[in-house]
Amino acid sequence: MTDGTIHGVRHALVLKRRPHGMPGAGDFEMVEERLPVLAPGEVLTRTLFLSIDPYMRGRLYDRTSYAAPVQVGGVMTGESVGEVVGSTVPGFAAGDLVVGTRGWQTHAVTEAKALVKLDRHGAPPSTYLGVLGMPGVTAYSGMTDIGRVKSGETVVVSAASGAVGSVAGQLAKRAGARVIGIAGGAEKCLWVQETLGFDDCIDHRGMDIAAALLAACPHGIDVYFENVGGAVQQAVFSQLNPFARVIMCGMVAQYNDELAPPPGANLAFVVRKRVRIEGLIVTDKPERFPEWRALAAPWVADGSLKYRETVVDGLENAPEALAQVLSGGNFGKMVVKVA
Amino acid sequence: MTDGTIHGVRHALVLKRRPHGMPGAGDFEMVEERLPVLAPGEVLTRTLFLSIDPYMRGRLYDRTSYAAPVQVGGVMTGESVGEVVGSTVPGFAAGDLVVGTRGWQTHAVTEAKALVKLDRHGAPPSTYLGVLGMPGVTAYSGMTDIGRVKSGETVVVSAASGAVGSVAGQLAKRAGARVIGIAGGAEKCLWVQETLGFDDCIDHRGMDIAAALLAACPHGIDVYFENVGGAVQQAVFSQLNPFARVIMCGMVAQYNDELAPPPGANLAFVVRKRVRIEGLIVTDKPERFPEWRALAAPWVADGSLKYRETVVDGLENAPEALAQVLSGGNFGKMVVKVA
Repeated sequence: MTDGTIHGVRHALVLKRRPHGMPGAGDFEMVEERLPVLAPGEVLTRTLFLSIDPYMRGRLYDRTSYAAPVQVGGVMTGESVGEVVGSTVPGFAAGDLVVGTRGWQTHAVTEAKALVKLDRHGAPPSTYLGVLGMPGVTAYSGMTDIGRVKSGETVVVSAASGAVGSVAGQLAKRAGARVIGIAGGAEKCLWVQETLGFDDCIDHRGMDIAAALLAACPHGIDVYFENVGGAVQQAVFSQLNPFARVIMCGMVAQYNDELAPPPGANLAFVVRKRVRIEGLIVTDKPERFPEWRALAAPWVADGSLKYRETVVDGLENAPEALAQVLSGGNFGKMVVKVA
Repeated sequence: MTDGTIHGVRHALVLKRRPHGMPGAGDFEMVEERLPVLAPGEVLTRTLFLSIDPYMRGRLYDRTSYAAPVQVGGVMTGESVGEVVGSTVPGFAAGDLVVGTRGWQTHAVTEAKALVKLDRHGAPPSTYLGVLGMPGVTAYSGMTDIGRVKSGETVVVSAASGAVGSVAGQLAKRAGARVIGIAGGAEKCLWVQETLGFDDCIDHRGMDIAAALLAACPHGIDVYFENVGGAVQQAVFSQLNPFARVIMCGMVAQYNDELAPPPGANLAFVVRKRVRIEGLIVTDKPERFPEWRALAAPWVADGSLKYRETVVDGLENAPEALAQVLSGGNFGKMVVKVA
């Protein structure tokens, strides 16, 4: 604990203009500010790793969604892992490791109750943004609350090498399912099959997805973990089994053109097949976060839960990292190393 | 009980050819057969009322759906209320009233276990095909198992004057919801509002449905009971609230062109709004049938549960009655009076 007075400056990326289509560096601006005086209950942290996630594209539209949009001139939102450098709160001391929503900036002043303290000697800090963080919990909540996979069922996961998909598929394997991934490119597909242990992985680039799915899922599809939308969604929907469950987690293929989205699948099959299609926003179930960390940290420690990260160096490269995530240019969980 | 020997003939409508588009009289053929000898466990009934329902269109396609298709040369399937005229089964005597799946024919031989005995002095026999029958149970199961309407919510019901929609909306009113119907034509809309007691009813013919919905549902839509599909579906989907539930019961607007169905709504909103879209086939929950009859028969008796029937006279007019149901030409539950 300190008296709240901090000397120094922070750098932050603020939204300069709302991007049309793919966001880029020109849509953000780096600003420098003096660090504020801490109010009672506040903690100052320096950012170690910044999380880059597809949902961030939605925050750049000027509309009310499940969360408020980022305002032009405001610091871009995002989760990060940081180290405490100042605190007015008992229980938070310099050197403590925390995770929370702290935005695209080198330092953040946060209310202590919005931060979760991490074990410095536990999993690598960046994993609390990926496999043990929001994406991991998303996969866990989707499988637990909607998918309810049973042994012997066929599960398809799109964006299978991504931070969410890679965990979703591994959970389905643990449940005894046959798991088919869909990913972009041979390298990702190879990793999904060989390292994650999926039964098969379909490369959606330049391939007849419907035909490949039919070959990989001879008994149809019981659970679909949806991360991409578009043509992949339509191909999977056409092969769902009766009583299939669809976890609608993301539709990254269309985040840049959502103001004029392409038409979707005709839903007549939903009646015939009694399909359940359900949207998932992980923050609706905050209790799943500590539950997942407790469950999965031992799996990360013993190496049985695999993950992969793409680490980009430097806060100034966060916009480019976001563009990569939206175009599938990353491999696994995208994080920006800030300090 | 008899010794199983029955004298006489039955008339039956068999499928002559698979219809393209709207089914008509030319797609069926009336045949005459001698009544068979009853085997042990069988009951012979003469048909009083035949139920005509939109789902029947699906049985005319040559494909496996949730139920087997009707074969060319086979008797058209359907529920009916009948009177026992012969029986080899204790507990079923001449004059007993029964309901069951007995097809488009004047007489049917049925296994006793497939029949439900009705109270001769209870509700009018035809109601066991409508408000107290499969359509009523469908509405009840949809609202109970998927909709879970809470007081104060806004519920939209399409085909609101139909056998399913009229019950679904009345159940939502009983639950304390604001209920908006969608129906075809001023006469139906008036009945939905004045007799059924819905808060409003939108005529989808020659109207901007989206604008009318916006006016009728200023707080958005929490539950949608889907019976029609097409343009109505897309208009409703665009105004669903977060955590909305969609009971996918039927899409009658496209039953005749389902082999090349129109594109559906883009489902990006399902993620953002955590919507649940769930298919319903009422026979999956057989326990709901007796439950509903016990619950709703007193409401029919005391007049608090309203219903309306269109009665067509003569088995030979069943195909035309089906065409009417598929085009919205009926009003309320469509039944054919056979005997």
